[in-house]
Amino acid sequence: MKNFKGILSYEGTRFLGWQKTRMGDSIEKELEKALSVLLRHPVELQSASRTDAGVHAKGQVINFLTSENTLDLSRIRNGVNAILPHDIRLLSLEEASLDFHPTLDAAGKEYIYEICTGSVQSPFLRLFSWHFPYALDIEAMRSASAPLLGTHDFSSFCNERSLIDPDPVCTLQKVTIENLGGGRLQILVQGNRFLYKMMRNLAGSIAYAGCGKIAPESMRGILEARDRRLAGMTAPAHGLYLQRVFYKPHSSS
Amino acid sequence: MKNFKGILSYEGTRFLGWQKTRMGDSIEKELEKALSVLLRHPVELQSASRTDAGVHAKGQVINFLTSENTLDLSRIRNGVNAILPHDIRLLSLEEASLDFHPTLDAAGKEYIYEICTGSVQSPFLRLFSWHFPYALDIEAMRSASAPLLGTHDFSSFCNERSLIDPDPVCTLQKVTIENLGGGRLQILVQGNRFLYKMMRNLAGSIAYAGCGKIAPESMRGILEARDRRLAGMTAPAHGLYLQRVFYKPHSSS
Repeated sequence: MKNFKGILSYEGTRFLGWQKTRMGDSIEKELEKALSVLLRHPVELQSASRTDAGVHAKGQVINFLTSENTLDLSRIRNGVNAILPHDIRLLSLEEASLDFHPTLDAAGKEYIYEICTGSVQSPFLRLFSWHFPYALDIEAMRSASAPLLGTHDFSSFCNERSLIDPDPVCTLQKVTIENLGGGRLQILVQGNRFLYKMMRNLAGSIAYAGCGKIAPESMRGILEARDRRLAGMTAPAHGLYLQRVFYKPHSSS
Repeated sequence: MKNFKGILSYEGTRFLGWQKTRMGDSIEKELEKALSVLLRHPVELQSASRTDAGVHAKGQVINFLTSENTLDLSRIRNGVNAILPHDIRLLSLEEASLDFHPTLDAAGKEYIYEICTGSVQSPFLRLFSWHFPYALDIEAMRSASAPLLGTHDFSSFCNERSLIDPDPVCTLQKVTIENLGGGRLQILVQGNRFLYKMMRNLAGSIAYAGCGKIAPESMRGILEARDRRLAGMTAPAHGLYLQRVFYKPHSSS
């Protein structure tokens, strides 16, 4: 038995999310199907993150077990990509230790949220960013983000389903807001873990701070109140990218 | 009677090109329809460039005449964008002199051709660039481009239809090749005019020089031979963008 780790990129637009469902297409279903055809046995996947409907990924991490002992990894990768639809691509594949698990071993994740600024939405960004036609003050967004760094109870930025999650405490190592030019504004967040819809709630709240709907200096109070109703809206799925997953050195291979 | 100049951006993926045709959707048809609804009279458009099927634009220039004398230009622009499909957007609208014509008055154009490098195609670039999986030597591409600058007979880079064009002489002011990062390579060409499929033939030939299929030092001979068969392939439409159209100062408004 061998364990393989793969890195995946996908455009989430037409999918109901990562996870298999009878309701329609999912990334998990497509990748399991492609791997099962190539390896000639049923394949079960695990992933670092069960991305929601419409969310994109540039660095989703998956693993699968196989009893095939002599795999040519670059042939498997190319074969999988030949079977997969064009909006999903397996970027790389490597052998991992037998106990490697993409969720349990993850030390942290990096998400990117993209906003399309300007009064007219760019046709090229419409599926890949949130069109926000109001003027955004980047410095206000940066000062609203500052209190989010460090270890906090993030209940104010979690949607209902996370009430199931007994632990609302997360640590954010990095929050940056950059103007990429061409009407693209990027919010990047690195953290050890993220609660349900947390990144989209952070993005919505930071955007609200940028247009004056939330005062930047009130962000600390919103965080401390642990009340979802005080924070900004949940930003739409199509601006969100799972960018990278971090692992402790010993568990990645 | 007044004359209006507009700047347009569109994703060409699902269109048969700029020009109206009974065969299917065109950008011209969509924009004429939207303007006719808003202005309450039939509108006829002219454009700086009749982009081919699948070609994108970030700065297409159009004009139209109307007898409406009191137009609120930003309301017309927003109204047009509310009617247009999401893959076409009117970026701006201004009054022009009555004799302004977007094709006849154009002093030059800028096209961009994007190539997606790397062995695996990015799902995010698949509709917006040519996936070229072979290693590309940027310096070889640059030295192959150098002889193209200036005034030449570009018959070697024109497809058949241009045999109708009695004048194959064009002047290129700028040819640059840049690595944009993230697997994106960009060829930018500025010229006073472009022959039929010339930009896609230049891009295909420059890519061939980058992967060794054409020796960079043979590019001058290919140009001078005025023989289409000697140059590289016609690069696919979905990597091409009409970026800007230049006008002499007096004719733009």
